[in-house]
This record gives sequence, structure tokens and C-alpha cells, in this order.
Amino acid sequence: MRKLYIIGIGSGNPEHITVQAIKALNDVDVFFVLNKGSSKSDLIRLRKEICERYIDDPSYRTIEVVDPQRDPSIASYSLRVQAWHQERAVIYEDLIGRELKDDECGAFLVWGDPSLYDSTLRVIDHIIARGIVHFDHEVIPGITSIQALAARHKITLNGIGESICITTGRQLTPGLVASSENVVVMLDGKCSFREVLDQDVEIYWGAYVGSDKEILLSGRLTEKLETIEVARSAAREKNGWVMDTYLLRNPSARRS
Amino acid sequence: MRKLYIIGIGSGNPEHITVQAIKALNDVDVFFVLNKGSSKSDLIRLRKEICERYIDDPSYRTIEVVDPQRDPSIASYSLRVQAWHQERAVIYEDLIGRELKDDECGAFLVWGDPSLYDSTLRVIDHIIARGIVHFDHEVIPGITSIQALAARHKITLNGIGESICITTGRQLTPGLVASSENVVVMLDGKCSFREVLDQDVEIYWGAYVGSDKEILLSGRLTEKLETIEVARSAAREKNGWVMDTYLLRNPSARRS
Repeated sequence: MRKLYIIGIGSGNPEHITVQAIKALNDVDVFFVLNKGSSKSDLIRLRKEICERYIDDPSYRTIEVVDPQRDPSIASYSLRVQAWHQERAVIYEDLIGRELKDDECGAFLVWGDPSLYDSTLRVIDHIIARGIVHFDHEVIPGITSIQALAARHKITLNGIGESICITTGRQLTPGLVASSENVVVMLDGKCSFREVLDQDVEIYWGAYVGSDKEILLSGRLTEKLETIEVARSAAREKNGWVMDTYLLRNPSARRS
Repeated sequence: MRKLYIIGIGSGNPEHITVQAIKALNDVDVFFVLNKGSSKSDLIRLRKEICERYIDDPSYRTIEVVDPQRDPSIASYSLRVQAWHQERAVIYEDLIGRELKDDECGAFLVWGDPSLYDSTLRVIDHIIARGIVHFDHEVIPGITSIQALAARHKITLNGIGESICITTGRQLTPGLVASSENVVVMLDGKCSFREVLDQDVEIYWGAYVGSDKEILLSGRLTEKLETIEVARSAAREKNGWVMDTYLLRNPSARRS
């Protein structure tokens, strides 16, 4: 039976890889790599570095896949993304059928952890539901940018007994922050923390966390807003891309 | 300068340890180990196994610390825990001062990740604030039971663009589940999912996730409640302790 690994490889520090992931990497015959365009060539380089550093036998193959475009004519965000995942499923199904022999092992490498804001498992589920190619699959967890952020700031995400909300820039609202002691924001393309400036919160911000480009900033949001915006935009300019994550901590949402 | 590592070692699978953690383990002269009583001897054994397996030079020392009791006369949960952390700080401060030479390296090993429902970093902050012993400290992230749970169930924690709430059994309420697409519950001593039976949710439950005692169950909460309760209580009986984690997924909370 064919086997597919979905391997979390951490968020930028090649030493965040686990022993379990290294073992899986060494089992792999074919890596399926999604090419999202050249702007994130740092990430492609890092993925290559991880394979070269941790795989003993370099006889594995790498198949590059050009990521399909999302269809802008679909108005609903969720439906647009679903359609895009279906397209990816068809592409991967074809590749798995053509490139992976019956006793071979394929893998998708996922930034961070496969369970958090990543579509690979959803695409795999689509392929399984279509029932055309068959395989076993196994998921290997990885360190997320959230954990790397907290570790580098040397903070906990929650106060004693508190809850944590993990969300996207798109969903960040003043109401959410007002009612949550701790909000972690990922996938924020546009400094959404601006939307919650009326809240007296602390921000723990990081870009390229864990990598050699890492930038860390923290303090009261109202006081740090400008510094973060300037740093983020300069980094984006310099590197061609930026990926940031942050924690907003609202002491006044604390239940006594 | 003395150095202290706070190292996340995963939630039970010794292969969830990262390359970064292994490097740190090999730097350590003294491990400070909290003894919480004999009921969790599996965890003590696993911690020992991790050290023996990954540390090349076995000349490190291990100092056992008896954990102070929480003071039941303090009514507020948060104040009771704070007082307990202060007590721990005094104990650790004394140990660091006495047991760690100026150029030595100490470590605390933390189950899961130091940023999530763990008090070590808060205790370290208390010690720093007291200003009596001095050291540098570094935090090494680890795979949490949440990530192990999702990987073993082969699921994502969030649907497309959705938020995730991470909370404790103590804070799980029907209102929280009604308004959240995805609620992850940790530190639940008493099957708090019973409190949200009126919600039509799916549960992805796991105990001892990632270890050789692992139990996984999933399905509609109303249908799986009894099976989970029976499995949990039998496992607790057999092993003397149980640690479980679960995701409650509420499709009807989904914004369109």
C-alpha cells in the first residue's frame, strides 16, 4: 500500500524539527512540493536545507506542483477556498497516481503544524472521498509560529486558568479582543491590530519567528503600533515577503 | 553567567522531541525535577527515558524537588495558584543558588510546551523579580497534546478561516461552545463535556496521546459520551492517572 506523510516542519528554525519528523523524512521516496511563486524563495531554500540536513540517503525525488489560482469570481471566501482545495485535490490525485509506485512513500511538508491553518489535510480528505487513488496516511505534528513566538518572547500564552483564542487577521474585531484575555493572530496580511486600538492591550509581535531574519517587538499596542508597522513594512520590502504572528493580551477581560 | 533552559519535551511520545531540545538537553549540568507524588510514575519514567535516550554524556545531575501543596484556605482559584507559584519560586531560587555553579547550565523539563498551561515560566519570572539569584534563560518549544491529538485523529483544529478557542475543563460552558466553531479543552479533571450535551457537537477525544497507552475516540458527543466516560474511568483505574485532551467542533457556530 502507498503511504503519504503529512509532516509539520516548524515555522522557520530548522532545529524545530522533531525526531519523529526526521524518521519520516528518511522514509520518503517522493516529496510533493507546492510552488507558490518565487516571492517566498527563502521558504523553498529552508525546506531544501531541512531535507539536505536531515535525510541520510539523497536518492529521494522532488515533484514540484504549480499551485492553482483561487477563482476571484466566487464571492464567498469559504466557497472560494473550498473550490481551490478541490482543484488541488485533482492535481495531487493525478500526481500520486502517476509518481508514487505501490510500495513507495510520498510526503507533503507543511510549515508549522498540519492541524493549524493549513489545507493539506483537507485536500487529502477530498482525494480520499473521490476514491480514485488509494493510500495510507500519517500526520506528524510540528512546532507552530505561535509556539516559536511565545518561546522567543519567553512568555506563556495564557494567564492562570485563562482561555486563548487563535484566529486570523480577517476575524480580528474589537469585540473579540474585549471578551478574550488572550488572542493569537495568524495569517494577517494587513496589520489588523489597528482595528483594536481602542482596547488597552499588550502586543507580543514577531515576524519570521525562529529564523535568522526574526524580528520581535512587544509592549502596549498604542505605543508600539507605529514601530511594528514600520518594521513590518521595511522587512517586507527587503525580503519580498513577510509572515508575522502576534499575541494580544487584554488584562481587563480577565475574570476574577 | 548561569543559564536555565525551560525545555518542552512533548506530551508522551519520546519522538516528539525537537533537535533544538536535544541540543539543549546535552548542554545541561543539572535537571530540576518536580516530584508531584508517585501516581504519575509513568511520566517520571518517560522523562528519564528521554534523558537516557538523547543525552550522550550521562554525567548530568538530577535534583528532585518536592512540590509544595496549594493552600486550601485561599478561596480564589487564581490567588491560590499565585501563592503556590510564589512558594515554588522560593524553593527553586534556593536550589539554583545552591546547586548551580556560576558557569553551569540548569534545566526544567516541561510536558507539552512551556507556553501553554504550564507554570514554569511564571515561577521563573517570580524568581527574576525577587532579584536574589541571577541567570540567563532560554525557552525551547515542544509539541503539545493538542497537536498530538489532531495528528493522531488526522484532523485540522479549524475549518477554513475559523477561530479556535483553547480552554480548561473549568471554563467550558454551553455558551462558549455555542459561540465557537472549535473548542479545545485541556486540564479537564471531570469530563466537563457533560456540561455541553445540549449542543449538537462532534468530539475528538484522546487520552495519553502519543504514548503507548493512547486511547482515541470520536463522533457525535451525545453518542460517544458514555463510551468516553467508561474508557476514561477504566484507564484511570488501571494506570493510576489519566490525562485527556479533546476538540469540540460545533458546525452550527459557523459564520457563513
